Amino acid sequence: MAASEELRGGIDLGGTKIEAIVVDADNNVLGSARTATPNSGGPTEVAAAMAAVMREAATTAQLDVGQLAGVGAGSPGEVDQQTGTVTSARNLPGWEGSFPLAAKLEAELRVPVTIGNDVELATNAELLLGAGRPYSSLLGVFWGTGVGGGVVIDGKLWAGRGGAGEIGHMVVRQNGRECTCGRLGCLEAYAGRGALELRARKLHDEGQPTVLFELMHEHGRDRLSSSIWERALKAQDKLAHELIDRAVSALGAGIASAINLLDVEAVVIGGGLGVRFGQPYVDRIEAAMQPHLFASERPPQVHLAALGDLGGALGAALQTRARRAAAAGDSRA
Amino acid sequence: MAASEELRGGIDLGGTKIEAIVVDADNNVLGSARTATPNSGGPTEVAAAMAAVMREAATTAQLDVGQLAGVGAGSPGEVDQQTGTVTSARNLPGWEGSFPLAAKLEAELRVPVTIGNDVELATNAELLLGAGRPYSSLLGVFWGTGVGGGVVIDGKLWAGRGGAGEIGHMVVRQNGRECTCGRLGCLEAYAGRGALELRARKLHDEGQPTVLFELMHEHGRDRLSSSIWERALKAQDKLAHELIDRAVSALGAGIASAINLLDVEAVVIGGGLGVRFGQPYVDRIEAAMQPHLFASERPPQVHLAALGDLGGALGAALQTRARRAAAAGDSRA
Repeated sequence: MAASEELRGGIDLGGTKIEAIVVDADNNVLGSARTATPNSGGPTEVAAAMAAVMREAATTAQLDVGQLAGVGAGSPGEVDQQTGTVTSARNLPGWEGSFPLAAKLEAELRVPVTIGNDVELATNAELLLGAGRPYSSLLGVFWGTGVGGGVVIDGKLWAGRGGAGEIGHMVVRQNGRECTCGRLGCLEAYAGRGALELRARKLHDEGQPTVLFELMHEHGRDRLSSSIWERALKAQDKLAHELIDRAVSALGAGIASAINLLDVEAVVIGGGLGVRFGQPYVDRIEAAMQPHLFASERPPQVHLAALGDLGGALGAALQTRARRAAAAGDSRA
Repeated sequence: MAASEELRGGIDLGGTKIEAIVVDADNNVLGSARTATPNSGGPTEVAAAMAAVMREAATTAQLDVGQLAGVGAGSPGEVDQQTGTVTSARNLPGWEGSFPLAAKLEAELRVPVTIGNDVELATNAELLLGAGRPYSSLLGVFWGTGVGGGVVIDGKLWAGRGGAGEIGHMVVRQNGRECTCGRLGCLEAYAGRGALELRARKLHDEGQPTVLFELMHEHGRDRLSSSIWERALKAQDKLAHELIDRAVSALGAGIASAINLLDVEAVVIGGGLGVRFGQPYVDRIEAAMQPHLFASERPPQVHLAALGDLGGALGAALQTRARRAAAAGDSRA
């Protein structure tokens, strides 16, 4: 195997931004780039933005995309790894049906592309390279535009029938707030960045004072990004604090519920808001879990994601290698 | 191995009743007996009642307990299979500390006794002999005095760090009703027979009319057993219907939350109330799950426990064999 074959790309498609990296055989990051996820258009525009940011990441590593042995991409929604299609990535614009993301990226980048579910890839990256390394069972919680989860049982990801890990749609309050998914009382309805923005807008429109939207305009954003929330919290904005407190409380109840069911060793908290807010908020979530833990005398370990913003992209790059290794094994068989 | 070695006993210690069976090598039930779980006293009284009902079951099979190769016992609480102790079986009288249940039963019965968690044993029985046979992943939900759960992943029980499956203490309503465990908003606070009885008593004391307590006295009971609830429902008792409707709704939300996290193939519903109310209520729970299922277009299969009341005792008897097989393997090693 030539040295260049060990260079791989990873793309993480999030609800807010797209992150791309180039890694070497030891998963050292040689280059990276990011861009905002398109707010309008549809999957074709999103795929084009993913390809562009992947090329940019290669450039920062002084490489051409064509030198990569393969590119992995993580996407929200239902991902079919075999066919390379993504269905119902609902935190993305106009992505209701099924879209051949892998084929589209291969056509753009002209290297082999594998795809996987973003949250599963990020959980796997934390398990293999990050905060999850000491454990053989854990729950990854990705607090961002939505609230995603990854379940590791007996040292490997548990995907169920393909859709496991939807911790954001565990019910924390029956007949509670309407979620962006249309259901009532989901964890994500109280904690997802998307839902928080809708809620803030509504309360602001109803006359509640907040600096959130001023900060958004000031910083040239068109949505309440994690950094805008962070700035509002630092500015002691009352509405921002109330909404984030409620989010932390919902996360505590939802994660504790998952622990009561699964009793895994550890929880790893990542995602756009999780990584941005960092350890102080991981501590707050851990405290919010405590009153709901059935085995409260032996709580799980709770960690901040060690790979930060890059977990998803690293997981995608890792998947590329895993897929290539499997294919090589097949060809020998 | 002599033929008699294939005869095994199984005891299921529930919050309401104790069930004992004798089975042959093919797990055919040769005899059975049951008794009410002592309402007072402590673990010593409970263990004596378990031994007595095991002897009675042997008698109905025209056997003596001494002819059994072993007896398995399922208990609520934290069960340590290695030391044979049970800790904090909180739906049982005076069982706060740790108690050497296996040793106590062996002293009484003079045969080898293994113990296991009641809900795990019942889930395993449904997986191997009951409604779970077609599946390699499932959730067992035991709707009785409490609400217990068993998680099967990749064809085997997942115990986590020893305490997995506490679906009854998943939060369905943050800051909601106080549970018998002392926490707020647990599924069990709305659906467990113990909590339902407390709630019915409170509302009755506050003046709400109900036939529940009349029926209880009429039938010589000292608690609202599953059969009393069934009679009250049949009598169109308004309070009983309201409380059971609320329980079904909470079960729907809690089980759907677990499915969103785990995406297992099937749900098997057993337990005292589950088995007593039967298929019509399994259908109602399935309907109550639907609005909360994230992958609502492919819900899991939902089944009534096929082994009925005997699941726990069968699971306990199965464990005896599994333990003996493991010991035989060890001795060959």
